[in-house]
Order: sequence, then C-alpha cells, then structure tokens
Amino acid sequence: MSWLDAELREQPSALARLLDRETDRAREVAAAFRRDDIRYILIASRGSSSNAARYAQYLLGRANRVPVMFATPSLYTIYEQPPRLEGAIVIGISQSGASPDIISVLAEARRQGRPTIALTNDAASPLAQQADAVLPLDAGQEHAVAATKTYLNSVGAVALLFATISEDELALDELKSMPEVLERQIALSLESFPSLDGYRDAVGATVVARGVNYGTAYEIALKIRELSGLVVEAYSPADLLHGPIAAIQPGWPVVVVAPTGPARPSVEEVVVPLKERGARVLAVSDVAAVLRRADTRLPLVPRVPEWLSPLTAVIPGQVAGMRLAQLRGLDIDSPRGLAKVTLTR
Amino acid sequence: MSWLDAELREQPSALARLLDRETDRAREVAAAFRRDDIRYILIASRGSSSNAARYAQYLLGRANRVPVMFATPSLYTIYEQPPRLEGAIVIGISQSGASPDIISVLAEARRQGRPTIALTNDAASPLAQQADAVLPLDAGQEHAVAATKTYLNSVGAVALLFATISEDELALDELKSMPEVLERQIALSLESFPSLDGYRDAVGATVVARGVNYGTAYEIALKIRELSGLVVEAYSPADLLHGPIAAIQPGWPVVVVAPTGPARPSVEEVVVPLKERGARVLAVSDVAAVLRRADTRLPLVPRVPEWLSPLTAVIPGQVAGMRLAQLRGLDIDSPRGLAKVTLTR
Repeated sequence: MSWLDAELREQPSALARLLDRETDRAREVAAAFRRDDIRYILIASRGSSSNAARYAQYLLGRANRVPVMFATPSLYTIYEQPPRLEGAIVIGISQSGASPDIISVLAEARRQGRPTIALTNDAASPLAQQADAVLPLDAGQEHAVAATKTYLNSVGAVALLFATISEDELALDELKSMPEVLERQIALSLESFPSLDGYRDAVGATVVARGVNYGTAYEIALKIRELSGLVVEAYSPADLLHGPIAAIQPGWPVVVVAPTGPARPSVEEVVVPLKERGARVLAVSDVAAVLRRADTRLPLVPRVPEWLSPLTAVIPGQVAGMRLAQLRGLDIDSPRGLAKVTLTR
Repeated sequence: MSWLDAELREQPSALARLLDRETDRAREVAAAFRRDDIRYILIASRGSSSNAARYAQYLLGRANRVPVMFATPSLYTIYEQPPRLEGAIVIGISQSGASPDIISVLAEARRQGRPTIALTNDAASPLAQQADAVLPLDAGQEHAVAATKTYLNSVGAVALLFATISEDELALDELKSMPEVLERQIALSLESFPSLDGYRDAVGATVVARGVNYGTAYEIALKIRELSGLVVEAYSPADLLHGPIAAIQPGWPVVVVAPTGPARPSVEEVVVPLKERGARVLAVSDVAAVLRRADTRLPLVPRVPEWLSPLTAVIPGQVAGMRLAQLRGLDIDSPRGLAKVTLTR
C-alpha cells in the first residue's frame, strides 16, 4: 500500500487524536479571540494550509462576527512595508511550520504586540516559536508529499477553534462525532468509487463550491492536480460566471461540491450554464437530486451539519486524485518535482 | 475595427480623462481614509474589478499601512451573518455598479455606520447610491464584453487614491505621465507583437506575477481566457511552488510578468523550475535579460515606476487575448455565453 492510501485511511483516527488531546488547549487558545480589541483575524498560509484558511474565513468569521483576511506576505518580505496590525489577531497555518514567509508575518505581528497563534503539525517548528499559543495538529508524521491527514486536521483544528470560541457545546459534540462519520465516508468513497476511465485523458478540470466548502473546492483541485498532473482549478459559482466560464469547452470535467446546506442552491444554479456548454459534471453531494443530474456521482454520507461538511466533502477529491494518478501510472507518494516542505519568502 | 480593438486603443485617453476630471474628487474621497478609527480596508468586487482590487491590496495597504481584505459576499447574502465592521472603510469596485452581492456588502457597511466608497463607471448605479462617496471611472461606455478601458481606469482610480491618500505630489505627477507612457506601450505591443501561431492549439496557460502585479497576472489570465476560451490561470510564484506546479507539462505556456522592481527576482526564480518542466515561457518585461531567456518576448516600455507598472504590463495580455481569439476565429466582442453585466448574489 502507498503512503498516500494509508494516510488517507488514517484520517478518522488522526482527527480523533486531535479532538481527544487538544480540546482543552483549544479552549485556552480561544480566549485570545474574545479580547475586546479584536477587530479582525489575519491568517498567513500557503498550499493546502491556505485551503484550511479559506474554511476559517467563513467559520471564524461567523464565530466572532469579525472579518477574516489573508496576509500578503510580500508586503512583509520583498517590500518590507508591513501594515499596522492594530485590531488584529494573527494565525499562521503551516504543517511544517518552516516556510519563511509565514514566519515573517507572525514575527511582525509579535513585534507589534498583537496576539499570535500557530496551527502546525510540528510544535517545535520556527513558526510555533513565533506564536503566543500553539494548537498542534497531532496528525502524526505524513510521508506522502500530497497532504491528506495534515489538511484534514487543519480543518479539524479550525472547527475546534470555532466551537471553543463560540462556547458552543452542541457544536463541539457534533465535531466529536465526525471521526466515526469520516470512517463511513472513507469506506463509501473507497468501495463505491465510480470508474474514472472516461477522464483518463482529460487535460484538466474545474471544481466549484461556495461558502464553507469554498476551501474544499481549492483542496480538491490541488489534490487532483498534485497527484495526477492535470490542470485543475477552483472557483466560486459567482466568480466563474464573471468571465472564466468562457473556457469551459464540451467534455471539460467540472466537479460541483454541493452538500446539503445554504450554499447548495447557489452551486446548483451554475450547473445549468455548465451543461449548456457541454461540461461533464461530477457531483460531490448527499442530495439524491444533485447526484441524479450528474454524469459521475461522488456520494457523501448524509446528515452531516453543513459547517462540518468540509471534513467529508474533501474525501471523494482525495480518492479521485489517487485513482487518476494510478490510471496514469504516476508515483502517488512523490509527484515529480514536488517536495514535502516548500520554503518560500 | 472591433469594439475591443477600439477600446484597447482608447485607454490612454480614458485614463487622461479620469485624471483630469477626478483628481479633486479623489482628494475629497481620500480624506475618509485618514479617519483615526480606520483599522483596515474591505473591498467587494467580482471579475476584472477583483483584479483591480488585488492591485489595491498592495497599494492602499502601503499608503495607509493598514491591511486590505476582500469581502466574502456569501456571509452577507446566503448565510445572512455579516461580520461586525468596526474599524473598516469599505470600497465597492464594479464597472456596472449593478451586481447584487457587491451592493449587499456596501449596504451592510452603511447600516453599521461605516464609511463606504464606490469605484464605478456608472455614477447613477445602485452601488453608487449605497456609497458615501463615489469615484467615477470616467471610462466612457464600453461595448466589448471583455473589459479593457474600464479595468485600466479601475487601476488608475486606485492609483489616484494611493497618491491622494498619501498626499504624495511626486506620485501624482508620475501617475499623470502615464497616459503618454500608455500610448507608447500600446504602440509597442500592437506593432511589434510576436507571432502567437505556436500557441494556436494550446489548451491553456499559466500567468505568474507577484506584489503590485499580482492582480495583473489575474487580469491577463482572465482576458486571454474570456477572449480565446483557453483555460488560463494565475499564481504567485510562492503559491505555484506549493503544489500547483505539478500540472506544468512540457510545452505548457507560462506568462511571467516581471517588470523592473522589488518583485522581479522572486518571479524570475520560478522560471528555473518551469523550464526544467519544459514550459514555454512568455516574458512581459522591460528587462533585457528577462526577455532574452524567454521563448516569446512581450516587451514593456522602460522606466515606469513599479507601482504604476500594472497600467502598462496588462497591455501585452490584452493584445495576446485579442490575437489568440483572432487566430482561433472567435467573436472578440461577444465571447460565447458571456454577458456584459453579470448579476450574482
């Protein structure tokens, strides 16, 4: 078995470990978000961690009712004109905790006396050392270059922060049920995955989602892209309609991520113009009507609260990336030219 | 002559009109940015306007030294949980001023008593009506579906705000020289544009830039995509290296936007791994060494201050989109399935 396959299957136990070990620590970290001088949340991240950050943008924005923004590291590094961060609480998300640009943002926040938090899989990393508080990801060592369990636990850590910041014990209980739900999702996706033979010679694909699953679309795109070498991109329905839909040609695969929830109608609406352009639609959904209208069905287990659906909705994307890489005869643990830790400034 | 071609050539006079008519108004609008309760700038936009917003993220962040973030309209519309905007100044950028999601963000800001500014080409639009202050784009009516002069004037309006907020008369003089520089850039690009025959059958392309030209990369990608139907995407070098480079296959066209300035070395560094993967590099630059190493040279006029280079650097992208559409026999004024005004919520 490949590392990727093993780590993909390991995700329920990795999430259970995070929740088991870090809930008390999350309660401590959450206190910093309740300081009455917090006006916004600033997140620094790259790669898969940026997709967890996109989840945080919706979720933490709702917990605190303050906006969440992403850092522009070049203002800190190449332009050396970092902004004044009065009102900010700053989060760095990095599995390795090693990327210099992410560290620069936290170091500057600290210089300015702002509270800093690191979400990292290496609690001894340089990023962790720049943070006032660390929420470890507890995913265990990840060997495959493409992140699976570290991504899932980044999303899990954001969900844990949401539940503890909002002091919502019901939300915490819902989260704690997710390792078991995830177990069922992985079984469902691995056992009943449709054949992707028809997509073997695809050049690329587009993934569409909105709201809490906007980051899921980016992560599914990144995962398929890293593993299969296809050009895969992500869009919200609204952004796709504002011009980029022009490139959707007959036969182009489009993955729509549409679990039950308020964002679903907005995602479904875009299926009509996509079909008119001849796109082949792959639906990631627990809704029978959505799956029925799709060319390829990637079912989700039902009755997952929308705010936690990013934990299950990413699984069919991870499996699709793995299967496409296998179909194309590629090395799924070490895609050509990629390294496990990427250092950028 | 097509509308697109005419409007592309009209950009220097459109920019001159904006600067001529709106500098005094920009000084008034700029005053709102100096209120001492401003902690961050929030921008709502879609499509080409989002690319002008990406320019604003770097430029206005440097003028005010406060961070600039993008709104997540779905929190205002489908989730109905808008954030508290204490500390925000809110800018809506929309050529038509008609998109409901952008209007929702300004309306909410206004309800919360926060200062709101509209950058729009229609000073009587619903967006303008939600704003405390309007900076008209003065681009004149745009007939082609793909934005050229309205995009350029959005960038020009952001630059005008930068100069007036920072009360930098030297910057204002530099900006006022740009219509003439732009005239020379358009002549250079139209007269000496290299043949794109070798790219006629390309499926897509990737555009790379950083810092003030990060939005230029997105706009070049969008322009080529809307006009030619190619799958064109944009990345910062750092984000490309964190996984997505896996999809760069031999022969894949990569446009690197690398004018003189602090961001140039970071963009140039990525050319090495791109070449190793067999990418065909198209360079948008005024630097002889950068152009020499490229497969296709898209020269920029020299001696443009980096902060204004987005005004010239987008031109080769606009021309490339037009030429590729012509090579592929497409309708360049009305790409199939696109509308001039897109209404999303």
